[in-house]
Amino acid sequence: MDTAALFQKLKEGDRAALGRAITLIESGRGTDREQARKLLRLCQQQNGQAQRIGITGIPGVGKSTLIDALGMQLIGKGHRVAVLAIDPSSVRSGGSILGDKTRMDRLSNEANAFIRPSPTGGTLGGVARRTRETILLCEAAGYDRILIETVGVGQSELEVDRLCDLNVLLMIAGAGDELQGIKRGIMESADLVVFTKADGDAKQRAEAAARDLRHALAMLPPRRKEEKVPILLTSATEGKGITELIDAIDRLFAVDEASGRSRARRQQQALYWFQQAIEEELLRRFNNDPAIQQLRLEKEEEIRSGKKSPYDAAIELIDRFLPDSKR
Amino acid sequence: MDTAALFQKLKEGDRAALGRAITLIESGRGTDREQARKLLRLCQQQNGQAQRIGITGIPGVGKSTLIDALGMQLIGKGHRVAVLAIDPSSVRSGGSILGDKTRMDRLSNEANAFIRPSPTGGTLGGVARRTRETILLCEAAGYDRILIETVGVGQSELEVDRLCDLNVLLMIAGAGDELQGIKRGIMESADLVVFTKADGDAKQRAEAAARDLRHALAMLPPRRKEEKVPILLTSATEGKGITELIDAIDRLFAVDEASGRSRARRQQQALYWFQQAIEEELLRRFNNDPAIQQLRLEKEEEIRSGKKSPYDAAIELIDRFLPDSKR
Repeated sequence: MDTAALFQKLKEGDRAALGRAITLIESGRGTDREQARKLLRLCQQQNGQAQRIGITGIPGVGKSTLIDALGMQLIGKGHRVAVLAIDPSSVRSGGSILGDKTRMDRLSNEANAFIRPSPTGGTLGGVARRTRETILLCEAAGYDRILIETVGVGQSELEVDRLCDLNVLLMIAGAGDELQGIKRGIMESADLVVFTKADGDAKQRAEAAARDLRHALAMLPPRRKEEKVPILLTSATEGKGITELIDAIDRLFAVDEASGRSRARRQQQALYWFQQAIEEELLRRFNNDPAIQQLRLEKEEEIRSGKKSPYDAAIELIDRFLPDSKR
Repeated sequence: MDTAALFQKLKEGDRAALGRAITLIESGRGTDREQARKLLRLCQQQNGQAQRIGITGIPGVGKSTLIDALGMQLIGKGHRVAVLAIDPSSVRSGGSILGDKTRMDRLSNEANAFIRPSPTGGTLGGVARRTRETILLCEAAGYDRILIETVGVGQSELEVDRLCDLNVLLMIAGAGDELQGIKRGIMESADLVVFTKADGDAKQRAEAAARDLRHALAMLPPRRKEEKVPILLTSATEGKGITELIDAIDRLFAVDEASGRSRARRQQQALYWFQQAIEEELLRRFNNDPAIQQLRLEKEEEIRSGKKSPYDAAIELIDRFLPDSKR
């Protein structure tokens, strides 16, 4: 199928076309890459008005369960929901812990939901880049609520911050500060906090934890001057708190739209992806240079035998690649 | 102080000189960078015979406590111990959760121990690169046991795998598979597993967990054909298991020395750092090009106004940087 035809199908909301387009993006082949670029250029002109929402939290906090419930309510309100994942464990060949359809029982059977696991392999940054492109495809295909799931410990929630308009942090009351995953660091990028599993005996504990967190956040510089970070309680088993979560999200979007923050955030993200594209393309051309490929083999041999340090070998290779004036 | 003098002081084991050398490595200034390079070249010729040991585990598993006990015993056996950290939370400006001297009570007061927190800022890859260089400095300064602490959830233990000869994974019995942090993925790079806090009531649980893990590992492809992954129990409060841990580490080093695995692993790591150095240096020259700096401002404006996609802008910039033949 040529690019224009694929784009047409995509705009009509054809799931097979969307799957195919994502496969192009995730492919390493040169021709696929070329077509993916053309497709993305068409998508970019669409200018997505979707809400891009990050869902972060440590393993076991209940991300899939919450996404299942949130997604179902959004669909009930007439939205189309895409669930993507940035899974740090997908970077190595091993298992994938996120974006597992089987953990989103109801959503995975909905015609208006599209669930895609994390791309695998490469670097975490590469996974995030491909996820960003998948977001553009999903928006072109008419999905107006994009949920991006990730594990919140370390790097991956930083990557999500570069993709989403709002970041929802899930926590469990009483899981211990340390296990909550470097609370202070993660708090910096949380627009909204949800204590999950706030039911039965745990409800009071969640209420106390929410109160404590409210006090703690009052000490930190505010994320928005117009509004405090909302702290909510949800219960998947009792089906509570999801309506309030959607309302809180919508309210923050309205606030950010009015303050110009939404636009500023997307601009900043675009500049970040500009930098990423520079790095990727520069390296691609370097790697594709036949003279470099030959010389690299020699340098690798020198490194293996201990004759040369990795750094010195790299300098010699780059000196060969760039003209004198760029040294 | 000139580089030769600094290197001389370093070789004499002068702590102030080591601190100063590490500061050079972590500096972003061009002249510091130049001096750091020269210094590293001198260190590299020393050819370190140190054991580089990664210590990985989720927050709360007891990494600092174990390192304190392990370090003290190593010093008792006549070794000099450096403790470095790769802290994913140090990548953002926020707090540092690792390499905290105050959590290594005894070790931090030892003349034969050197504790350095994680470098801050930049990318996780950049933090790992600076840690690698710090390892070379520590080895030149006579430290023969290098312990590299990191949080094992996602990326950072992969980075440690690129720095160390052996990777020790710490676990707590009964913390739940999910909270242990993607057990399967992490297991791929564990050379040795330690169940910490195996004392009092928890001892039996730790023994059962060790047994279960032994069975589980029997199903996976073996990490070494000569020896199974050792699974040990330690108790910091009872001071147990550390001697056994040191013995197990020494035994694995002997096995890997005999099989040639040690050498192959370091070679592979050197090739990885070669690739990293290429990426870093290529980008540095691109960023330092005055014509590029000017044009980049224009491109950024086009991205901000939505006139150009990040990718297309990147291509135009690179086309300007590279001669026609490299397009």
